[in-house]
Amino acid sequence: MNKIKLKSMLESFFLEDIGEGDLSSQALFTQKDRGTFYFMMKEDGIFCGRDIIETGFKIQNDGIQTEVFVQDGDAVTKGQTIASIEGPMADLLQAERVVLNLVQRMSGIATNTHHVTQLVRETGVRICDTRKTTPGLRMLEKYAVRSGGGFNHRQGLYDAVMLKDNHISFAGSITEAVKQVKNVHGHTVKVEVEIETREQMHEAIEAGADIIMFDNRLPQEITEWIQEVPAHIITEASGGITLDTIIDYAKTGVHYISLGYLTHSVKALDISAKVQFDKAALL
Amino acid sequence: MNKIKLKSMLESFFLEDIGEGDLSSQALFTQKDRGTFYFMMKEDGIFCGRDIIETGFKIQNDGIQTEVFVQDGDAVTKGQTIASIEGPMADLLQAERVVLNLVQRMSGIATNTHHVTQLVRETGVRICDTRKTTPGLRMLEKYAVRSGGGFNHRQGLYDAVMLKDNHISFAGSITEAVKQVKNVHGHTVKVEVEIETREQMHEAIEAGADIIMFDNRLPQEITEWIQEVPAHIITEASGGITLDTIIDYAKTGVHYISLGYLTHSVKALDISAKVQFDKAALL
Amino acid sequence: MNKIKLKSMLESFFLEDIGEGDLSSQALFTQKDRGTFYFMMKEDGIFCGRDIIETGFKIQNDGIQTEVFVQDGDAVTKGQTIASIEGPMADLLQAERVVLNLVQRMSGIATNTHHVTQLVRETGVRICDTRKTTPGLRMLEKYAVRSGGGFNHRQGLYDAVMLKDNHISFAGSITEAVKQVKNVHGHTVKVEVEIETREQMHEAIEAGADIIMFDNRLPQEITEWIQEVPAHIITEASGGITLDTIIDYAKTGVHYISLGYLTHSVKALDISAKVQFDKAALL
Amino acid sequence: MNKIKLKSMLESFFLEDIGEGDLSSQALFTQKDRGTFYFMMKEDGIFCGRDIIETGFKIQNDGIQTEVFVQDGDAVTKGQTIASIEGPMADLLQAERVVLNLVQRMSGIATNTHHVTQLVRETGVRICDTRKTTPGLRMLEKYAVRSGGGFNHRQGLYDAVMLKDNHISFAGSITEAVKQVKNVHGHTVKVEVEIETREQMHEAIEAGADIIMFDNRLPQEITEWIQEVPAHIITEASGGITLDTIIDYAKTGVHYISLGYLTHSVKALDISAKVQFDKAALL
Amino acid sequence: MNKIKLKSMLESFFLEDIGEGDLSSQALFTQKDRGTFYFMMKEDGIFCGRDIIETGFKIQNDGIQTEVFVQDGDAVTKGQTIASIEGPMADLLQAERVVLNLVQRMSGIATNTHHVTQLVRETGVRICDTRKTTPGLRMLEKYAVRSGGGFNHRQGLYDAVMLKDNHISFAGSITEAVKQVKNVHGHTVKVEVEIETREQMHEAIEAGADIIMFDNRLPQEITEWIQEVPAHIITEASGGITLDTIIDYAKTGVHYISLGYLTHSVKALDISAKVQFDKAALL
Amino acid sequence: MNKIKLKSMLESFFLEDIGEGDLSSQALFTQKDRGTFYFMMKEDGIFCGRDIIETGFKIQNDGIQTEVFVQDGDAVTKGQTIASIEGPMADLLQAERVVLNLVQRMSGIATNTHHVTQLVRETGVRICDTRKTTPGLRMLEKYAVRSGGGFNHRQGLYDAVMLKDNHISFAGSITEAVKQVKNVHGHTVKVEVEIETREQMHEAIEAGADIIMFDNRLPQEITEWIQEVPAHIITEASGGITLDTIIDYAKTGVHYISLGYLTHSVKALDISAKVQFDKAALL
Repeated sequence: MNKIKLKSMLESFFLEDIGEGDLSSQALFTQKDRGTFYFMMKEDGIFCGRDIIETGFKIQNDGIQTEVFVQDGDAVTKGQTIASIEGPMADLLQAERVVLNLVQRMSGIATNTHHVTQLVRETGVRICDTRKTTPGLRMLEKYAVRSGGGFNHRQGLYDAVMLKDNHISFAGSITEAVKQVKNVHGHTVKVEVEIETREQMHEAIEAGADIIMFDNRLPQEITEWIQEVPAHIITEASGGITLDTIIDYAKTGVHYISLGYLTHSVKALDISAKVQFDKAALL
Repeated sequence: MNKIKLKSMLESFFLEDIGEGDLSSQALFTQKDRGTFYFMMKEDGIFCGRDIIETGFKIQNDGIQTEVFVQDGDAVTKGQTIASIEGPMADLLQAERVVLNLVQRMSGIATNTHHVTQLVRETGVRICDTRKTTPGLRMLEKYAVRSGGGFNHRQGLYDAVMLKDNHISFAGSITEAVKQVKNVHGHTVKVEVEIETREQMHEAIEAGADIIMFDNRLPQEITEWIQEVPAHIITEASGGITLDTIIDYAKTGVHYISLGYLTHSVKALDISAKVQFDKAALL
Repeated sequence: MNKIKLKSMLESFFLEDIGEGDLSSQALFTQKDRGTFYFMMKEDGIFCGRDIIETGFKIQNDGIQTEVFVQDGDAVTKGQTIASIEGPMADLLQAERVVLNLVQRMSGIATNTHHVTQLVRETGVRICDTRKTTPGLRMLEKYAVRSGGGFNHRQGLYDAVMLKDNHISFAGSITEAVKQVKNVHGHTVKVEVEIETREQMHEAIEAGADIIMFDNRLPQEITEWIQEVPAHIITEASGGITLDTIIDYAKTGVHYISLGYLTHSVKALDISAKVQFDKAALL
Repeated sequence: MNKIKLKSMLESFFLEDIGEGDLSSQALFTQKDRGTFYFMMKEDGIFCGRDIIETGFKIQNDGIQTEVFVQDGDAVTKGQTIASIEGPMADLLQAERVVLNLVQRMSGIATNTHHVTQLVRETGVRICDTRKTTPGLRMLEKYAVRSGGGFNHRQGLYDAVMLKDNHISFAGSITEAVKQVKNVHGHTVKVEVEIETREQMHEAIEAGADIIMFDNRLPQEITEWIQEVPAHIITEASGGITLDTIIDYAKTGVHYISLGYLTHSVKALDISAKVQFDKAALL
Repeated sequence: MNKIKLKSMLESFFLEDIGEGDLSSQALFTQKDRGTFYFMMKEDGIFCGRDIIETGFKIQNDGIQTEVFVQDGDAVTKGQTIASIEGPMADLLQAERVVLNLVQRMSGIATNTHHVTQLVRETGVRICDTRKTTPGLRMLEKYAVRSGGGFNHRQGLYDAVMLKDNHISFAGSITEAVKQVKNVHGHTVKVEVEIETREQMHEAIEAGADIIMFDNRLPQEITEWIQEVPAHIITEASGGITLDTIIDYAKTGVHYISLGYLTHSVKALDISAKVQFDKAALL
Repeated sequence: MNKIKLKSMLESFFLEDIGEGDLSSQALFTQKDRGTFYFMMKEDGIFCGRDIIETGFKIQNDGIQTEVFVQDGDAVTKGQTIASIEGPMADLLQAERVVLNLVQRMSGIATNTHHVTQLVRETGVRICDTRKTTPGLRMLEKYAVRSGGGFNHRQGLYDAVMLKDNHISFAGSITEAVKQVKNVHGHTVKVEVEIETREQMHEAIEAGADIIMFDNRLPQEITEWIQEVPAHIITEASGGITLDTIIDYAKTGVHYISLGYLTHSVKALDISAKVQFDKAALL
């Protein structure tokens, strides 16, 4: 994770929520009124978001003390206290919602990713994400996928080539599309080709694809075709794969299964904040 | 929706996805290679995101022609074509994913909100959102809630006062907390008070709260207590309300029910893009 | 005040004044040349701007030590030393003008607001600002109004509804305009209606306005009409109110008087900076 | 004026006022509801702000048609219509306040500057501004000074050297200060020296100052001393000069008089907006 | 090239050069004074920068008409007119220097890259850049390398793994370093390993490196060792390669030679601007 | 140098290089793995870039300890250690390339500038830069010119007037052009006029130019003409001056020689980084 970028993201998120100021806190608290927040899990799951907690509250006030008791990727259970944060009440309350919104979302992604990886853990297949992330949050969501035991597909349009049906139709053939790509791009760029038939698969192999993606294929098709893929080429299955069918895909022998819903349809993992006022503050 | 802000948000989202450039398209297309995208629903639901489609593609290239066939809030059905977008292939492909990520998310929120409002449609209660939105997307997510027939709670910490248990404990009492708020803030600011007991409710009424929020109360409690709330005070129920129990809360007579999961746990509504190459382009 | 936003504002203000560098200081001082600035009032008034002094100099150099001897809203007198700032001369001189430009303006607003509130102090009316603030400085100017004993009207177009003559004409009637607003907006949004006749006032009351604004009415009109406004509705007078007539408006019984000139026509409160070089620096 | 910078400034000002959206307009207008605004002077004065009107409304919606009937620097009179703006009502209303806040302020500065220049018009002295501008608005305020017939002093710390008492004390002498500056800076940088005694004036001349500034001197002192300033050196008077005494300073023979209050204590020039709905829109 | 990013870059570059305004032009031209610029080569070379010219002038004023007569990568000769730009003189002059600074630099890079590729054209080796680009200009400089017939190495730290001596020492061995990387990163990430000995080369191959980089090796070493590299692994030479020795490296059989000086030590290609005033403008 | 601006520049440069994260480091290091970098000269030259090293690494992690052993402008020799930087390995590696890219470039400029000044050191002429700097880096490049013993010409279009052939043709004459400029601009703005003939020179002097620039003149022309320039006017030679001819120009008696290639064609000064792992880290 790029912390310079994280800081900048958090600042813009706080500006969105706080605007011209927190009307409630500014009427009730002075900077001398301090307290301690305890973040507590309200559900079991996989935690993700240490950096959000540590960096987020510091942005509000660098005198805030945070302690996070768990690591990203740790299993946590309902009722478990995962962090304490001490500082001026007004600053804590201003940061709380944004931090929790992020941590709950990231933990939700990590939890779901972990769940999926457990379903296929005996096959050795790797579960990976897609570009179907929430705009503006890709760095955090892809981090959460890793924390849950998953892997990242390309970050964006800029770090790998994916030749989909449209590219291929336009170029005329897989062979031609791969050739054009290789004429333009250097050696650090991987080229992935989506295929739908065995013939396309062989054309992609011949053309020099680094990765073959079986697009909306049946497990039995993949199982059969994959025998003919040379060892140094990586394989991926994608499209129409559900929790019910994932184990069938995992058993085909593909190296990766990519799933859009890891990031596009996320259930936040519930976390609550309990507050303890500092005694001195209440005297 | 503030379109100046929307444009700035979309630009930053495109930068996230495109980075230094779209490796795939730049190898295969010139600016003369044109085509038309058709966005087609893959599920039934409520559409939301006209402005995203119209503004998003224009940011890539202001020569792109977009036509959106549905209005925000319209019911759409699987297989329905909702928009056509014509322009240079490279520009269309660069914008596609970001636009769809947003539209699918917003339509998911609108669909879910609509579903909830239908459950309680005979009671006249209004369903509203919370601050549990995705950081960076609040304007869009709150817009989607409205498109689905819901209402917006406050936008952020800056446009209304909510006195929660922590504020009240710190101030010493509801009476004192409301008094401090009214000493500081002017007449355009609404003051909402969370209450957990009938006594607190009466204290809030006496103190001059504009909105009483029943926090994690049972439907029967609300039904009983609400009889004692003067007509000019607005009531809201929140906390622990599920799709199974929402009708019971709706029947209590509260004006608003607020639900965090409208925005924090969203299932994207699936939309696909079909491409037609312009004939000239392929000659 | 949102300190994350304040910091960002101050940085942009320093960039405006310093540009590529302070030509004068960079030719004369090294980072070892240190001194102390004393800010001294050159006029009587109400001080406002602690955060500007404390945050502003820290942005230049977080080793600078600032001490502000007065609180926002304190009465200060000519000759009074209000702050000391110690650090490298070059950094002090780079920050001085921007900090003073802001503090003098904010103190000017606080002083003027205080003056107006004193004119009407026996009536209990509250003086409030408008949206006629300096673009880019609204947060600071509205804060200064509060420091001078005034109150804030809405922050912007986004946090309350004001139905003016144009909105009403377009909707067809106050009744229709309020109805449309209430159909769209939730319970945290106040609705204010500008009225010019007694009939409009009654229409606004019936329609459910939260705030009635007497727009360019005579004090005697207001005094008469206001008898018929229910207790739970807030009243405001605005338009054409001068320092000479304000007491007459204050005696009408309105809750609020809003004045554009609190922020649109400000006389800065003069403050000078005296410098003491650290002995060591001059050896 | 740098229009790229102006556009960026206006965007940030609109974001400040509009935030997540204009609650009033979005409830009442569709994009098809159009109208025409007429800006009308409510006071006599000097107009300034064509670019604000033309660029501002275009930023909201580039289909808005603006026509400004006066030039920057033109004398305008109460009741005069200075501009018409036609477009969607919602866009017009969103832009109106920010545009007027700026134009009223700039016209106030131009009017005041013009007034001052008229007081001394027979002497040939030039009136100029200082760095006591509103943070964030310097480009616009300095432009307004020019529109009113004044001249600009340096833009900031970066485009000319001013040696004030602190610089001189620290360097040890004017001679030494000027020498250090000339050792470091190139030939495009003017060096101005503030002097308080005739000896200092001569020292500055000897040292090679380009501009001599008489700091808080009496008119008779300046009249006398200025005889000894070589023709190629420019002179300026500053400090404690009021509208009552300015003619005395103007007659001393100085080339420039700089006045902080041209920009730090501005009375906005009042302008109102009248609206005409397009007939079609009301059918 | 990402045009949204390009536009944002150009805006910031214009702000750097124009600041508060072009003092010279604003004194001499009105918006009605128009002219035509002709960009003419003052040296032979390879042109690069169409988008800079087309986008740059449009940012100043979208009514400016640009015509660029050459394509990126075209050979151009001294005296050749490469573009014409017509519009208001003030806008042309404001944009000229920034546009030329970029185009001259990019053309310098393209020319130099082309020169290098010609030296080795018979060997089939590909010449590529490094991360030694000018901060802030990487997208443009890497584009220029491609225009000159070169290829891009990774864009930054984020799109490929390079294991250098420090990474390897820290991990303990190449085997361990590659293993750790493969445990964490997905299938779209290439892994390059720098090696200095034949043993390291074999270890890298065994570990599954995608690319082997011969770091500061002699041509004869590479020629010998490279026989033992499997066909599907890409090879690269880097370090201490000069124009005198590059042919020797090219003949070793490596696929890529990377050269920092393509971008870190650039000689701009000289281009001048000739102006023709529109007749009407001079009447 | 404006350090607020420097910090902002460095942050954007790091974002360019690091993007979503350093793939290599994040796989191999934890925050506990620390080391020390030593920057060592690989060539003789003039060092420039202390602030880059000190500020750059702090932005990554404010716990990093930097020590720079040389001052900007110091002569350094091959093999000399110029700085040590201690902190977490991942943070050091993320910052290294960007910092070195800048320091090498700035040192290259300082070295080259120094070289040129040495060629003419006995003549007293001052060498200065132009606006032909790398877009986005002007502040740093102009600083580097000063560190090498050169001087800065104007920073941009905003801080001095330069009347070139186009301005003069358009205005009709030098006399008219200077007059128009003096009518508009105040006393802190220097006016430079480019001349090509002796007549133009005299016209510029009469018109009141502050600086006369001999544009593409022969040394003998300048030598002759310059006799007729009054003492208080500064002279500059520019255009077509090479390292071979510069001494001839220096001997003409001009005050300044401006050279575009000081900044537009820079050879970076090579610096390498050696790493020492902290023992503890390796245990």
